[in-house]
This record gives sequence, C-alpha cells and structure tokens, in this order.
Amino acid sequence: MTTQVIVLNGGSSSGKSGIVRCLQAVLPEPWLAAAIDSLVDAMPASMQESAEGIEFAPDGAVGIGPQFRALEAAWMEGVAAMARAGARIIVDDVFLGGAESQGRWRKALDGLDVLWVGVRCDSETAAAREIARGDRARGMAASQADLVHRGVRYDLEVDTTHTESLSCARKIATHAT
Amino acid sequence: MTTQVIVLNGGSSSGKSGIVRCLQAVLPEPWLAAAIDSLVDAMPASMQESAEGIEFAPDGAVGIGPQFRALEAAWMEGVAAMARAGARIIVDDVFLGGAESQGRWRKALDGLDVLWVGVRCDSETAAAREIARGDRARGMAASQADLVHRGVRYDLEVDTTHTESLSCARKIATHAT
Amino acid sequence: MTTQVIVLNGGSSSGKSGIVRCLQAVLPEPWLAAAIDSLVDAMPASMQESAEGIEFAPDGAVGIGPQFRALEAAWMEGVAAMARAGARIIVDDVFLGGAESQGRWRKALDGLDVLWVGVRCDSETAAAREIARGDRARGMAASQADLVHRGVRYDLEVDTTHTESLSCARKIATHAT
Amino acid sequence: MTTQVIVLNGGSSSGKSGIVRCLQAVLPEPWLAAAIDSLVDAMPASMQESAEGIEFAPDGAVGIGPQFRALEAAWMEGVAAMARAGARIIVDDVFLGGAESQGRWRKALDGLDVLWVGVRCDSETAAAREIARGDRARGMAASQADLVHRGVRYDLEVDTTHTESLSCARKIATHAT
Repeated sequence: MTTQVIVLNGGSSSGKSGIVRCLQAVLPEPWLAAAIDSLVDAMPASMQESAEGIEFAPDGAVGIGPQFRALEAAWMEGVAAMARAGARIIVDDVFLGGAESQGRWRKALDGLDVLWVGVRCDSETAAAREIARGDRARGMAASQADLVHRGVRYDLEVDTTHTESLSCARKIATHAT
Repeated sequence: MTTQVIVLNGGSSSGKSGIVRCLQAVLPEPWLAAAIDSLVDAMPASMQESAEGIEFAPDGAVGIGPQFRALEAAWMEGVAAMARAGARIIVDDVFLGGAESQGRWRKALDGLDVLWVGVRCDSETAAAREIARGDRARGMAASQADLVHRGVRYDLEVDTTHTESLSCARKIATHAT
Repeated sequence: MTTQVIVLNGGSSSGKSGIVRCLQAVLPEPWLAAAIDSLVDAMPASMQESAEGIEFAPDGAVGIGPQFRALEAAWMEGVAAMARAGARIIVDDVFLGGAESQGRWRKALDGLDVLWVGVRCDSETAAAREIARGDRARGMAASQADLVHRGVRYDLEVDTTHTESLSCARKIATHAT
Repeated sequence: MTTQVIVLNGGSSSGKSGIVRCLQAVLPEPWLAAAIDSLVDAMPASMQESAEGIEFAPDGAVGIGPQFRALEAAWMEGVAAMARAGARIIVDDVFLGGAESQGRWRKALDGLDVLWVGVRCDSETAAAREIARGDRARGMAASQADLVHRGVRYDLEVDTTHTESLSCARKIATHAT
C-alpha cells in the first residue's frame, strides 16, 4: 500500500515546519501541507482572545475551548477528504492531548494509509530556538516538548536536536514510499 | 435553510481577503476562511516554478498545470467535507476559468447551502491597489478584473471601488443568516 | 532646492505605507522608506512588553517609555544622516505627540529640504480598515485619527477616505520634485 | 571602552538573524538591529528587478548595481550616526565583496568601538537550512558560505553548524561588554 498521509507531531519549535518543507522538496510527488498553525490563521481573529477559542498564556501554555475544538474536528474531516480525493497530505500538528489527540486523528483518517512520525527535540534546545525565531511566546517550546508525545505511538521518530531538518526529512521519505 | 458556505469570487487586489476578515468579525458564529492563496502556500515551493504547477508571468498572467489542478480538486472536496462536518466556511477564490470554475465548485459543494458572492472592483482601481500593497506581480489585478466574472452567476454582488470592505461584509452578512 | 526628505504623518490604518510604496513607484529616482513600524521591529522583542519600551493596550492606546524614546532619537539622527549622505528618504511616522513630535523631527532634519505631508483618514473609515487588515489592535485607528495631527503644520495634506493611495502619491510627487 | 556596534557577517542561511534576536534577548541593554535584508525591503520594489539595483539569479547569485550601492553607502552613514547618537547597534550583513565590504564599513564606523564577528556555517548545512526555511532562492547559501569571509578580519568567530544561535549569542555577548 502507498502512504497517503504523513502525520508529524511535535512540540512548538521542534522543527516540524522545516521538515515539512524539506519533505515537499525531497519527495518525488507533490505533497500538500496541512498545518495546525494554518488552521489557527484561518479562524476569526477573535478566536484567539476567547476561552471559547484558543488562548496563548504569557508563560506559553495553550488553552483550547469548545469553538476551537469544533472547527478543528471539521478540519480533520476535511483533511481526510482531501486525502481520499487523491491528494498526498503532510499533517503538521501539536498533540496537546497526547494519545487522545492521536485517537481523534486516527478516527478521522480511518481507512487511509498513514505514517505516524514523532518529531522530538531536546527541551532546552527547543527553548533556545524559540528565542532565535522570535515569533512565539516564550515557554511554549519547553512546556510542550514532552507533553505532546505522551502515549502516542509512532511508525518512526526523528530528533532535530543534532540532526538537520533535511536529514530528518530524508529519513521519513524512505518510509513514505 | 442556513448558509453553510459563502463563496467570494473576484480578481486579484479586488479586496476579497479584507472582506473575509470583516465577515469573520461581523458574523455572530465563527466562520473558517478557505483561501486559494493559502492552498498555493500549502503546495511544494517547486510547484510555483513549473508548468505542471502554477506560474506567475511577469505581466501578471497566471498559468495553471495538471498537478495544480489535481491538488485543487482534492482541496475543494476537503472544503466541502469541512462544511458537511459542521464548519461554516468562507471560500476566497479567483475563478480564472469563470463559469467553468464555478461549475467545479458547484459539483464539490453539492447538497450544501451556498451563498455565491461576486467581488467587483474597477480595473484601474484594483491596479492602483496592487501597487499600494506591493506584494503582487504588476498586471494581475487588471488582467483578472473582468475575466473571473465571465458567465458566473451570483446571489449577491459587492463592489469595493467606492465601498469599504466592512460595508461590503455587512451587506453580505445580511444575506448569510 | 530639491526635496531630500518626505515626512508622512498619520494615524494607524490611515494608509501611509500604501502611499510610501506608491511614491516609490511613481517618483523617478529611488527613494528609501524609513518607517516607525520598522524601527519597532528592529528593537528587542522585550521592548514591546515593558513600560520602558512601547506598550500596545487592548483598547489601541500606545504607551511610550524612556528606552523607546532614546532609540527613537538616535534613529532620527540616523535617518537625517542618510539624507545628508545623499539618500532620498520617505519617513512614515505616527506623531503621537503631535506638534511636539514634529519639533523633534524638525531638529533632527535641520538644514535638509523637507516636505511635510499630513495623511488624513476619516476616523470611522480608518477603524473599518483596521478590521479589514486584521493585524492591528482594535481601537488604534480611531484613537489616533485626530490626535496625531494636533498642532502639526504641513506643506500638503492628503485624505485617503475617498482617494486611492496611488492618487495621493501622485499629488505628493508633484510637490516633491 | 564599551562596544557600540556589533557587526555580524555571514552567508545566507548561516543563522545571523537568529543570533541577532538571541543577542537582543541576552544583552542587558537594548540593542537595535540593522539588517541588510531590512535595507532591501526599504528600497523601491523596482530595485529588485533591475541591474541598477539588486538582482537575485535563479542559481542564488546576487548582482549589485550602482543605485543599490549608493543607497547602501548612505545607509552605512546612517547606521554610524545612530551609534554616535547613543544607540547600540547590531549590524547583520553579507559581505559579498569580502575584505572590500569590511573596508567600507570600517570607514563609515570610524571612531566607534566595533566588535567584528564572523558567522560561519558549513556550506552543505547552510544549503540544507535554505531548503528548510523555504523563502530563499536555492543556491544562495552554498555560493556565499566561503565567499563572504575572504580577507575579512574578525575579533571573534562563531559557527552555527553544530552550535545553537543562543549559544553563539552568549559567546558574542561575553566579548561585547
């Protein structure tokens, strides 16, 4: 069977979006990116200032409300439908709920051939990269580094602490054909 | 019946994305934006340098190839699936194929309650705004201003030439409830 | 004498940066933009979270502290030096202090040929555009619309309420040669 | 004497801007960033499509024309004036002319206490990061990796190949006080 969806899960500043771009560059066919950050951008601006939506605390904690959860569930169904319609998809997500988040994706992607990839990065290194990129609330990287992997089962794990995104992508690509 | 999808169609620099943000601000429920520009961003970078993908000529002409078309078709199915799963969606598209583009959306959105909105802007004004925004190839606005509306049928049309995005959005919102 | 510096002053969302890009497009010689927003971006991120730096209140009010003021004063000297070294400069600023802000620029630009331009926009229209652009705190446009012009003397005023940025730029350009 | 200007020189994708943000975070006083990329953004858009300005070839080569050179010279004078007026400045530049580029900065910064820092990155690693970031022409990183350091003399060199930006910044900071 052929991989239809690659799901990358990792904490903030672990290097997921760089791996996505590298995967798109090294995989022979065109793959479409579906990132949780793009979903947030597609929501009304007011969703980011409300307990109903998504809240980013000054310490980096992220709170998710019912309106966010509802749109996210519909988005997962949409991503699955794109894959069923023939698009190869790379999902770039942050499993704040760990195994429970994976369960929701598993249900949405039912019947599709999925490659589950854990993107790890040492907590201290991710926190350092968070400062270097300068566009994320300080503390997100550290608070999510381990949390998002709790109870999640992967086909493959990569670690960006000492490995470039391109090398990680090449490793993933060998499992995705 | 309740509107499930609002489709905005208009040429480059006609003011669609501003109307989307205003619609998200004025509509009482949360609506999700699904923009063709975001689809392009989600594709591999190499798609923008290939006749198979999407090409932006220096004069503003846009060429679409089969790989782009295939991913776009899957995206339309995905957008429809999000709406069927309960998300309210505002599509922000450029019907380069006019009536034929609308036909493809009609097919994908079959069974959903759709509000079709034409976003017009005087060609000369759109070209002026293209210079002011500074992030689009010169000529796109003028070449698309009329082209994208050919043969398209709308429930409602707005014109941003002399009307602010917020006023256009308020008018659309009265038809979307 | 030849214009060496064009200073545009106007409230948030009055359309200054669009006019800058249009001026750069219509003026025959290359002009360099010097925007207060770029200065803010060049400061440490921590300056935006401190009473010593610059604070954006949820209601759109902007507070300026002594560290910001010190860097801003040095920046004004730098902009003046660029002009004295032969670069044509378009300053894009928000005179939160009205006449007092102009006085500081006047001192820094001493000896240079400056064209002072007021960029007006009806308060309600600017507030509507603030919603449409979606990247500014709600309330800045309305709170600054009149404030920034208090006691300021101009060579020329433009109003973007009913006039496109490109037309405003063409009008300014006729005074800048 | 106290460091007034830190000049970082390195090729595209060597990690300079990340180091700048980390320096701004770790240095006790506020430092202002002055990046060659920001200068390019401040120029008219047409400068990037002309042999008089700056041209980015598809293979990553960069061509500089007389209009660019003139504005750049004025910018250097302006940066020096900001430092003389009391602002601490971190310059982030790409010495396409190697020692000759340094000579021009040396002349502009005459009399100021400058810390010259070389930012190295293994050519292959920089090329990999160029793919991961996705917003630069392929080939720039490799073509500039060694070129920009030819004949340049530094007070300090850092290498981002195996060292995070934050660690590089901390090392630089110990020399900047």
